[in-house]
Amino acid sequence: MNKKKVVVGIDIGGTNTVYGFIDREGNIVTGDQIITTHYDEPEVFVAALYEKMMITASRLGSELEILGFGIGAPMGNINKGTIEYPADLPWKGIIPLADIFGKHTSLPVIVTNDANAAAVGEMVYGGAKGMRNFVVITLGTGLGSGLVVDGKLVYGHDGFAGEIGHTSIRPGVSNRDCGCGRKGCLETYVSSTGLKRTVLKIMADRLDDSELRRFSFEELDSKKIYEAALRGDPIACEAFEHTGAMLGFKLADVVAHTNPEAIFLFGGLALAKDLIFEPAREHMEKNLLYIYRDKVKLLPSELSTQNAAVLGAGSLVWSAADQEQ
Amino acid sequence: MNKKKVVVGIDIGGTNTVYGFIDREGNIVTGDQIITTHYDEPEVFVAALYEKMMITASRLGSELEILGFGIGAPMGNINKGTIEYPADLPWKGIIPLADIFGKHTSLPVIVTNDANAAAVGEMVYGGAKGMRNFVVITLGTGLGSGLVVDGKLVYGHDGFAGEIGHTSIRPGVSNRDCGCGRKGCLETYVSSTGLKRTVLKIMADRLDDSELRRFSFEELDSKKIYEAALRGDPIACEAFEHTGAMLGFKLADVVAHTNPEAIFLFGGLALAKDLIFEPAREHMEKNLLYIYRDKVKLLPSELSTQNAAVLGAGSLVWSAADQEQ
Repeated sequence: MNKKKVVVGIDIGGTNTVYGFIDREGNIVTGDQIITTHYDEPEVFVAALYEKMMITASRLGSELEILGFGIGAPMGNINKGTIEYPADLPWKGIIPLADIFGKHTSLPVIVTNDANAAAVGEMVYGGAKGMRNFVVITLGTGLGSGLVVDGKLVYGHDGFAGEIGHTSIRPGVSNRDCGCGRKGCLETYVSSTGLKRTVLKIMADRLDDSELRRFSFEELDSKKIYEAALRGDPIACEAFEHTGAMLGFKLADVVAHTNPEAIFLFGGLALAKDLIFEPAREHMEKNLLYIYRDKVKLLPSELSTQNAAVLGAGSLVWSAADQEQ
Repeated sequence: MNKKKVVVGIDIGGTNTVYGFIDREGNIVTGDQIITTHYDEPEVFVAALYEKMMITASRLGSELEILGFGIGAPMGNINKGTIEYPADLPWKGIIPLADIFGKHTSLPVIVTNDANAAAVGEMVYGGAKGMRNFVVITLGTGLGSGLVVDGKLVYGHDGFAGEIGHTSIRPGVSNRDCGCGRKGCLETYVSSTGLKRTVLKIMADRLDDSELRRFSFEELDSKKIYEAALRGDPIACEAFEHTGAMLGFKLADVVAHTNPEAIFLFGGLALAKDLIFEPAREHMEKNLLYIYRDKVKLLPSELSTQNAAVLGAGSLVWSAADQEQ
């Protein structure tokens, strides 16, 4: 019997690490996840992940031929196969992830930024199919981004291109601390954490009643804020409006760099639909140079939140396999 | 006798239009200029330019075989061969420049943004030789930019990538009117005009004596401000410091988009050397995400102010000729 050829796509997140075995057509034939934060050492993490992946594969009825591993991770560097100083992961410093994987397998291991992986996923399997110039913005705990120019992911000189979450909203004016050590980064406003911080700021400034006033900062999350906004809560609505506006401001800057055909929003906050898309679109258009106006599409990702980075990381391995033939 | 093969590089500026006949090695064998503002109609401008170019060529002792025309112009669009709503040129609306040239010649005519042409010039003949990822910032009346990613100029979906001069310094806060109709664009601070405006702002705020207080806004220019700064004039020094800081702020954003190996400053303001480079470098580094720090070179262009866009526009024709063979 012919073995089914697959690649393994892995998305290392601050909380969970999700993986999938992906066939040529982009179907995830099987997959599972482990909890990232359970492992203090990257070596132990990789050993546990590898073992669990092999168990998942063995449980599938049909036999699989694995061609390689594609990994998306915060601060993942494709040139060096490393994760470098990830703010949102339990490990410190430079982690030689591809080398650590190499102790378990001799198959190719490709490491890249998780948002870059999501952008590749969008291009190969999602709404960016056939597009040559677009940007994917991932909205989670932080804000990630992947830029595609002329059909290719932009890696840049050091492999770290696309950190739009760490551009500055208003240099020298914004005062919000960022996990990266600076102040006023876009992701301190536009992310699930940023939305929470904005709710607190608005509650401090306004006198309006709000159901959100009964929650502590720790209890608050973007789902509660979203539901309050749907019920017309004034604080929640203003927080979404402000978050979308900040995003729109900076998307206008993004357009002035690479003039994309479309910008895709992906992840938790993007699921708030019009609450985030309407102010983002309005403020992007207002801030666009006239030559760009009414041209750039602001779209929701067509991939499920779970699978984009997994599919994208996997498709990097498919591309590499294709180039070898 | 064999004719010498050349391309014609043309740089259409707000004041002058400079052209050169360029051989395979990047030597300008002959060239001249005409005054852009003398021509109210683009058709009359092109006819006069074409006639003068042919006279320049005929005066050269040796015979030339022209392979084509490469044109750099503000808002030049390579996809359509047009100039679209240029703020700094005497013509309005969409100007079908390649088509107008087509009435005079059947040779290839390539139109691109003047800063993009300068970036190509830097890559082929200047300090970016051998670099795959870099950015050129042109500092003149306005601020232009050309982005190179993986060895190729970024044009984007509509051919308008690289308008970093029209990113916003502090969205919703900066109040300085821009020629594009918006407020607070980078070029309202970082350009020869921006420097003048900053001098006025500082003279309004401070009580210090300054030799610049005796000049009207119309009399002031960046040369006077530069010379005053060299003599230690406090207003002039603060204006350069502020201009460099604003540039540094936004260069940190540029790096977070495409992670270049180097950023080249080109044009009038770049000639002020340390007065602009020192604050720009300091504030860029301060505002860079840690993964980029101490890596990105901020360099002066290695091309003369006169020739970069001419050489770059010309080299686009050489590249096209090479691809045809």
